[in-house]
Amino acid sequence: MKKNKKVNAAILIIGNEILSGRTQDTNTATIALWLNSIGVKVQEVRVIPDIENTIIETVNYLKEANNYVFTTGGIGPTHDDITAESISKTFNLKYEIHKEAFKILEAYYKPGEFNEGRQKMVWMPENANLILNPTSGAPGFNVENVFCLPGVPSILKSMLGGLTNSIVGGEPILSHTISLRTVESEIANSLTEVQDNNKDVEIGSYPFFHAGKLGVSIVIRSENKLKINQCSDQILDFVKKKKIEVVER
Amino acid sequence: MKKNKKVNAAILIIGNEILSGRTQDTNTATIALWLNSIGVKVQEVRVIPDIENTIIETVNYLKEANNYVFTTGGIGPTHDDITAESISKTFNLKYEIHKEAFKILEAYYKPGEFNEGRQKMVWMPENANLILNPTSGAPGFNVENVFCLPGVPSILKSMLGGLTNSIVGGEPILSHTISLRTVESEIANSLTEVQDNNKDVEIGSYPFFHAGKLGVSIVIRSENKLKINQCSDQILDFVKKKKIEVVER
Repeated sequence: MKKNKKVNAAILIIGNEILSGRTQDTNTATIALWLNSIGVKVQEVRVIPDIENTIIETVNYLKEANNYVFTTGGIGPTHDDITAESISKTFNLKYEIHKEAFKILEAYYKPGEFNEGRQKMVWMPENANLILNPTSGAPGFNVENVFCLPGVPSILKSMLGGLTNSIVGGEPILSHTISLRTVESEIANSLTEVQDNNKDVEIGSYPFFHAGKLGVSIVIRSENKLKINQCSDQILDFVKKKKIEVVER
Repeated sequence: MKKNKKVNAAILIIGNEILSGRTQDTNTATIALWLNSIGVKVQEVRVIPDIENTIIETVNYLKEANNYVFTTGGIGPTHDDITAESISKTFNLKYEIHKEAFKILEAYYKPGEFNEGRQKMVWMPENANLILNPTSGAPGFNVENVFCLPGVPSILKSMLGGLTNSIVGGEPILSHTISLRTVESEIANSLTEVQDNNKDVEIGSYPFFHAGKLGVSIVIRSENKLKINQCSDQILDFVKKKKIEVVER
């Protein structure tokens, strides 16, 4: 694949605990930062409940609309873990014991501990590729462009490194942040001008409140370092004219 | 509206900063917990970029599929704040200066401070209902079943209380959590049985790691307190038989 092709992904968070507000999702940011670093841009994120039809319909849509789909959640041993069976149905694949995964977990647990509950975790779509889990044994899996990861943030994090070589990204998306001691309304017009002059660069403006003071972070994002620098210069130009202080964050 | 009708909502997070992983979304949990308390269940969450067509298409879908839609982000004064204009287009409404919002901000700022940048924040769909902002002046707005809130978490939080009376919820969704010193695979089968015996109750199982020890939280959710209690009794039954310790969290 040519390196400057745009590559995008969707993240699908599966789990009632996120929708109820009980659990704060952090996996989106973890996956998005990792994908950015290998040149994949997250186009959309969805959070859906543990309902089979909803999972099937959503994965069916997202896998066509994106180069990659990453799901989190629903691959543990309990009754509400239905991701593997739902993905099997999405791709019309048998839902069966994955021999390699079985061997991994058989070796991982002490003799007698690989019980029926745990064995549920080796049921997967037939011929799925395993995503190895250095933290807690039970692997995730991958079918075509869909990668299924667990919901527990520390475990998920430990599995991404091993996935990097399976993902073909474009140019890494670079970003540069300029933090200013000002409020958005003071710079809105000048910033609009810079954005209009640099249409292929993404410029975001984010108010912050830090150590008792208000400020605005301007984030410039592009695959092209040169364009980021040009944009940055144009922003620092108007910042200087307006006598706005640049701050470290 | 009859109180036992199920009422659902979607949350739509608008903002490149969430998709890039730069900013960790916390508004989903804030809105979901508030909605739960007034009897509204969050059916799905989507995070999308600051792109007009994407906003219009997504809101169009979500407003038909849900009783309520709550958007966050994109209502500030800068070029990347395009929610108000996009919502106007979604509903085929004029995008114009909202007289009441203008008066509020004119009174909020010191003379001379209500500049062109800030005036962008009073452009809204015609005849939108305002959502008052006790923190920083600039109101959100509501058109039909779509409620548009800011992205800054502290400001958003301060605006929800004033909204409560505008939302007609069903029975509040109650929940009860039982935390156990065990691992999921030890209880998976028994928990499946309880779920099968109580199909209209939502039972979730969530591993945790706290103070150096592993555990599992079982969360039971329903509008019906009696059903939660029945479920809880059945769970505590098998917990006792298996000699699993119940822990405080």
